[in-house]
Amino acid sequence: MSALAPPPRHIHITEVGLRDGLQNEPVVLSTEQKLSLARALVDAGVHEFEVSSFVSPRAVPALADAAEVVEALRGVAGLHLSALVPNLRGAERALEAGVDSVVLFVSASERHNAKNVNRSVAASLEGFEQVARLLDGSNVALRGAIATAFGCPFTGNVPVESVTEIARRFADLGATHLSLGDTTGMATPPLVTERVTRLREAAPNLPLTLHFHNTRGIGLANVMQGLALGVDRYESSIGGLGGCPFAPGASGNIATEDLAYLLEEMGLETGLDLEGLIAAAGRASELMGRRLPAQVSQAGPRLALSDCSAVPTAQG
Amino acid sequence: MSALAPPPRHIHITEVGLRDGLQNEPVVLSTEQKLSLARALVDAGVHEFEVSSFVSPRAVPALADAAEVVEALRGVAGLHLSALVPNLRGAERALEAGVDSVVLFVSASERHNAKNVNRSVAASLEGFEQVARLLDGSNVALRGAIATAFGCPFTGNVPVESVTEIARRFADLGATHLSLGDTTGMATPPLVTERVTRLREAAPNLPLTLHFHNTRGIGLANVMQGLALGVDRYESSIGGLGGCPFAPGASGNIATEDLAYLLEEMGLETGLDLEGLIAAAGRASELMGRRLPAQVSQAGPRLALSDCSAVPTAQG
Repeated sequence: MSALAPPPRHIHITEVGLRDGLQNEPVVLSTEQKLSLARALVDAGVHEFEVSSFVSPRAVPALADAAEVVEALRGVAGLHLSALVPNLRGAERALEAGVDSVVLFVSASERHNAKNVNRSVAASLEGFEQVARLLDGSNVALRGAIATAFGCPFTGNVPVESVTEIARRFADLGATHLSLGDTTGMATPPLVTERVTRLREAAPNLPLTLHFHNTRGIGLANVMQGLALGVDRYESSIGGLGGCPFAPGASGNIATEDLAYLLEEMGLETGLDLEGLIAAAGRASELMGRRLPAQVSQAGPRLALSDCSAVPTAQG
Repeated sequence: MSALAPPPRHIHITEVGLRDGLQNEPVVLSTEQKLSLARALVDAGVHEFEVSSFVSPRAVPALADAAEVVEALRGVAGLHLSALVPNLRGAERALEAGVDSVVLFVSASERHNAKNVNRSVAASLEGFEQVARLLDGSNVALRGAIATAFGCPFTGNVPVESVTEIARRFADLGATHLSLGDTTGMATPPLVTERVTRLREAAPNLPLTLHFHNTRGIGLANVMQGLALGVDRYESSIGGLGGCPFAPGASGNIATEDLAYLLEEMGLETGLDLEGLIAAAGRASELMGRRLPAQVSQAGPRLALSDCSAVPTAQG
């Protein structure tokens, strides 16, 4: 029934709300509050979590309990837990806590990487070799993530070659997956096509995950483009948790429930339960003390019918 | 560069904020305030306006000044002004005020039509014949609009046949355009494909306009599907003005600036100026006394760069 290329049947959604969602929120949750949100997500069928970042607790106090969160969620069967890691020290802490995979992250923009982790892209990549050696022989997977993969908030457009070059390095390091981060919502459908096409040439054995932000309202339009290209892995945040520290009012990650709603309506399987996600989004909203940007959790599912008598007339 | 079918080059956007946007807002604007918003939109390149509804002022007090708004905007050269009209009385008022086209509206759902205009779909359509006779020989165009074309908030799914049957009637009445209204945000990409395909069979000479609401966050995903099908006419509301009276917090129409941003980034021409739209959205927000749901006007254009020193570190 679709005019688009036939999209993949099953879509993998990784929930990043506990990491990307919480790192920018003004409210800092306790470990127990984070776990209550994680449990609500598990009840909704979520089993892939990017749970936290093993970065400096001084730089990101909201994620200082990364180890505790991983250890507690280890007790839940069937989950895949990943965590962001900038360097060897972070990887050691993540391994000790018991993650299933470490996600090494670097920006495609020199300026953003310097700002983010205080080193050059080359220095980040060099440090990753130490991490690869640490993981060698362990059963912990190495994943790669490229921040500002569609544009840099400080310097603007990012050449696709900066992205493909890092992807090749991740492939050489033995990465099993690669995530393209649209850190501040600069992705557009033509950029999605360009980057996905070029990455498939540069690193043909590295499955791609698309991580979009809805900062400029077109996050799910970019997902449509990804689907048309056959990309079957996406990252999202429950309720659209998160934001952008230098664009007040701008929303952050695409919302898990809006993404799951779109995909299920398109006949694609996500393994997620929409009512459960709406309940989890309610919990997230309660914990943050504010209404979150996601839409489906406010309007309800498509066939949640209204009481006719409550509605004004002559709306056209 | 796109994996989708080549989309149309030029996209027509009709601004419906003054009508669909304002009819549900708790704040009622004065005629002068509406005109100041319209002038900001004209400055941004908007020249197609659905300016108001000629419905009962008791039912929709916010649009009671429909005639005054049309008469004032008649003074601006180069605009196409349309207005919603439910029946002969409304059409007479619209003609007298000086519209370029009347948009006759009826719901594809009996229940919604009864609630909206207090008559059956058949009675609405019969009344339209009187309007067609009124317009015959005038230079005012007759357009058709089908509300709840993708689903009804009271009764759920709406059979595609209910939509195609009304479209045929509009074609017989000599309509020049047909708009499909996603009144409460129930459209999905597969429904867009189904309805557009079937309508092209049922009324091949009637150009289609898609009117999406972002109630469930997928308004622009539906636009992507429309583009893939070659649909080149969309309706939107500046700032995402409007909402849904029975889903508090749910957003209304897709936002003109987010739509224009998406289209321009895809290399499609809209004739609209993004900075101008952002200024108009600022004016709309000021008038309504609240932040509006559109994203681009909060985050700024894609290459509006940030001051590096203002940003926290280690975001991943």
